[in-house]
Amino acid sequence: MSSKALDYENLNENVKKCQYAVRGELYLRASELQKEGKKIIFTNVGNPHALGQKPLTFPRQVIALCQAPFLLDDPNVGLIFPADAIARAKQFLGMTSGGLGAYSDSRGIPGVRKEVAEFIERRDGYPSDPELIFLTDGASKGVMQILNSIIRGPSDGILVPVPQYPLYSASIQLLGGSLVPYYLEETANWGLDINDLRQSVAQARYKGITVRAMVIINPGNPTGQCLSVANLKQIIQFCHQENLVLLGDEVYQQNIYQDERPFISARKVLLDMGLPLSKEVQLVSFHTVSKGYWGECGQRGGYFEMTNIPPKAVEEIYKVASISLSPNVPGQIFMGLMVNPPKPGDISYDQYVRESKGILESLRRRAHMMTDGFNSCRNVVCNFTEGAMYSFPQIRLPPRAIETANKLGKAADVFYCLRLLEATGISTVPGSGFGQKEGVFHLRTTILPAEEDMPAIMESFKKFNDEFMEKYEDHKGYSRM
Amino acid sequence: MSSKALDYENLNENVKKCQYAVRGELYLRASELQKEGKKIIFTNVGNPHALGQKPLTFPRQVIALCQAPFLLDDPNVGLIFPADAIARAKQFLGMTSGGLGAYSDSRGIPGVRKEVAEFIERRDGYPSDPELIFLTDGASKGVMQILNSIIRGPSDGILVPVPQYPLYSASIQLLGGSLVPYYLEETANWGLDINDLRQSVAQARYKGITVRAMVIINPGNPTGQCLSVANLKQIIQFCHQENLVLLGDEVYQQNIYQDERPFISARKVLLDMGLPLSKEVQLVSFHTVSKGYWGECGQRGGYFEMTNIPPKAVEEIYKVASISLSPNVPGQIFMGLMVNPPKPGDISYDQYVRESKGILESLRRRAHMMTDGFNSCRNVVCNFTEGAMYSFPQIRLPPRAIETANKLGKAADVFYCLRLLEATGISTVPGSGFGQKEGVFHLRTTILPAEEDMPAIMESFKKFNDEFMEKYEDHKGYSRM
Repeated sequence: MSSKALDYENLNENVKKCQYAVRGELYLRASELQKEGKKIIFTNVGNPHALGQKPLTFPRQVIALCQAPFLLDDPNVGLIFPADAIARAKQFLGMTSGGLGAYSDSRGIPGVRKEVAEFIERRDGYPSDPELIFLTDGASKGVMQILNSIIRGPSDGILVPVPQYPLYSASIQLLGGSLVPYYLEETANWGLDINDLRQSVAQARYKGITVRAMVIINPGNPTGQCLSVANLKQIIQFCHQENLVLLGDEVYQQNIYQDERPFISARKVLLDMGLPLSKEVQLVSFHTVSKGYWGECGQRGGYFEMTNIPPKAVEEIYKVASISLSPNVPGQIFMGLMVNPPKPGDISYDQYVRESKGILESLRRRAHMMTDGFNSCRNVVCNFTEGAMYSFPQIRLPPRAIETANKLGKAADVFYCLRLLEATGISTVPGSGFGQKEGVFHLRTTILPAEEDMPAIMESFKKFNDEFMEKYEDHKGYSRM
Repeated sequence: MSSKALDYENLNENVKKCQYAVRGELYLRASELQKEGKKIIFTNVGNPHALGQKPLTFPRQVIALCQAPFLLDDPNVGLIFPADAIARAKQFLGMTSGGLGAYSDSRGIPGVRKEVAEFIERRDGYPSDPELIFLTDGASKGVMQILNSIIRGPSDGILVPVPQYPLYSASIQLLGGSLVPYYLEETANWGLDINDLRQSVAQARYKGITVRAMVIINPGNPTGQCLSVANLKQIIQFCHQENLVLLGDEVYQQNIYQDERPFISARKVLLDMGLPLSKEVQLVSFHTVSKGYWGECGQRGGYFEMTNIPPKAVEEIYKVASISLSPNVPGQIFMGLMVNPPKPGDISYDQYVRESKGILESLRRRAHMMTDGFNSCRNVVCNFTEGAMYSFPQIRLPPRAIETANKLGKAADVFYCLRLLEATGISTVPGSGFGQKEGVFHLRTTILPAEEDMPAIMESFKKFNDEFMEKYEDHKGYSRM
């Protein structure tokens, strides 16, 4: 019998080539260990509720009522739902035709897109057009949709930061394009040097690649830095000169843990720069309900907003969205709630503020605990997590550790992270999954474990790391592990 | 300024080429008319709740409780939720780690996949492996995932029925493969002739295309036929001989409106055929919560099950699924509820049966009303809707109507459907969106308008159609429209 279409050797090569480390070897091994009964701390993915974060009450009340609209007529509904949640559910149901069980327009419910546009206007100080906002099943799906519109073949290049969130490398591989890396500078707090960017583009062109778009992740994933206005201006200027679409991954815009560099959207900076740039630079910005202090990952809600994309191209993106009929409607409602939460004076306002502040302040404390913990370890250095949800320490692996890893046929950081997992149950992602400079090693962990568990986790990490270093540093002739 | 990456002329050609008529010209015009205040009857897409179908109560109670888990501790919860819904919600929450706000495994929640496997075993009489079941955001996403794994380039062909649901043509175009049509025979109740299939494959090979997979839609969309066991056996034999993966779109398996030909899954027929076929033919079957008597389109829940796909290929499909992190979790719960609804003796059983039987019986009556209505019209002939949700009448357009359409630069059926829309508000999809034989014209409408509205809709259709025919038939020298 000859081999078949869905045998491994006959699969689409782009499918086989793509890599997604966040759920790669480490995650699979962790899942195995968990099945065997080992306690695993999953810090491989920014999934707050999986680590015990409680959902915000108000949005869950609203969505529960939207899912069970017959409750709205129940005389007892007021006993377990506040009046503003009931009112909001009625309002959302009024925006749909057929409730949560009906497909919406493929761009999302018009009323929710209007709420998103109003949020963007409040945030940036410039009006936003709901017709240029598409709701999506989480931000990842939006990124893939846009990359799919841009990438025509292997000679189309997308500038992606290194280290990067591997959604970008995986999607570009899957779509058959070329990733053009630009390096973030660890010693400059993961800043971006425009001269390096120029060099990356020049090198790509030399290889025959047309660079068509540039990705920024702000706040950074896995690197945690917040981009300054000055840096954003340079980037936008660069995109204008080089005729690149700017893709702004801004999913962590609520997750800021310092006051010096607040989040500023690429769109605001672009519009502040005025003509001709404000009318010429093409920008697509992404957001989600999975991050922020919401962390509603499982609901798969998100949006992208397009700036300076001509109507004929928007129509094509709409057409492709329509093949999947519509993003999930409950996720759309979450997006509407996230951009338009309870206001002062609303019954649920105080509780909403208390819950969200509680989460955000705890995340800020955890960001410090983690950075400080890593920096107290032998051969580990770590920039502070200014924003997002991750810590990305550099692990200075001794040559003997690297050799041992090589003998096992593993990247040195994969080897380190596997040992860490087996010893402590902490499931991280090796830096090689995000990209890093040759010979430099990292790991990514979320800052999401419960605050009360953090000291024990960092202690357990330190114990493992320091023993590991002890074992593999050259002056030691014996083995302790 | 040179043109930019997201200008129309620079977009990915596959994006520009793909067509999706279900939300194409007719839908866009209908949306415009609706904005202008015209009453539109949207029968372009199988979206039952949008046309007034009420959601089943029990699943909505369960999902509301899963979304608001804090209600489970509320002493008043029993006043508005039945005990079995409360128990079921607790059970589902126990299957997740972190509730509905956490990403699940990228294949879906293991506990739900187990429920799906048990459902398949009850249905087919053969055990099913949860590891070979992936939950998806609706069936469409699953179809795209599998096609993406199969299609390597323009010389890879997929056999697709004509008429077909345009998800297939659109996805194949988007993924850069080749659609290889095989025609369903309208005069034989949309049956499929194996000799025609052979010819389609031979013709494709002659053009240098490697045919790799075959799509069947059973019950048929837009054609409504149910495949017989004999026909399914022939198809499976054919896939075996020609080394094709069989893709079984079985999303309408609950929607059956006659008793002669009940739904039988491709998997059951395959396994009944025994060795060697039962171990050699690769099959992927698709299902969804959007159809059946559930019609929960907006929730985007679905699954695919793989048969005879080797583990290394399953791993690759898993890896690609993981890039999108996880299907939406509420949609997964709906899938679990659909395959494992209340049982005799449960508090909610009677209500569940009453509601679902009510929907299904009304759909059966509507299927008859629509077929009979169409067949009473001048120049219209229509096969009975044995299953699914659509009526696909043939409209025998007079030569003068075809000429008029040509002059306007429109396909003749698009012209007819546009006139129908403007005259009556009935929004249909022209047959050309699904494919049809040269010179033969159809339209697709759902059978979903409310039963009480059906007589008026069919009357309004008949009036329009008969006047249209009157106007364009050759013996008439004057114009009445």
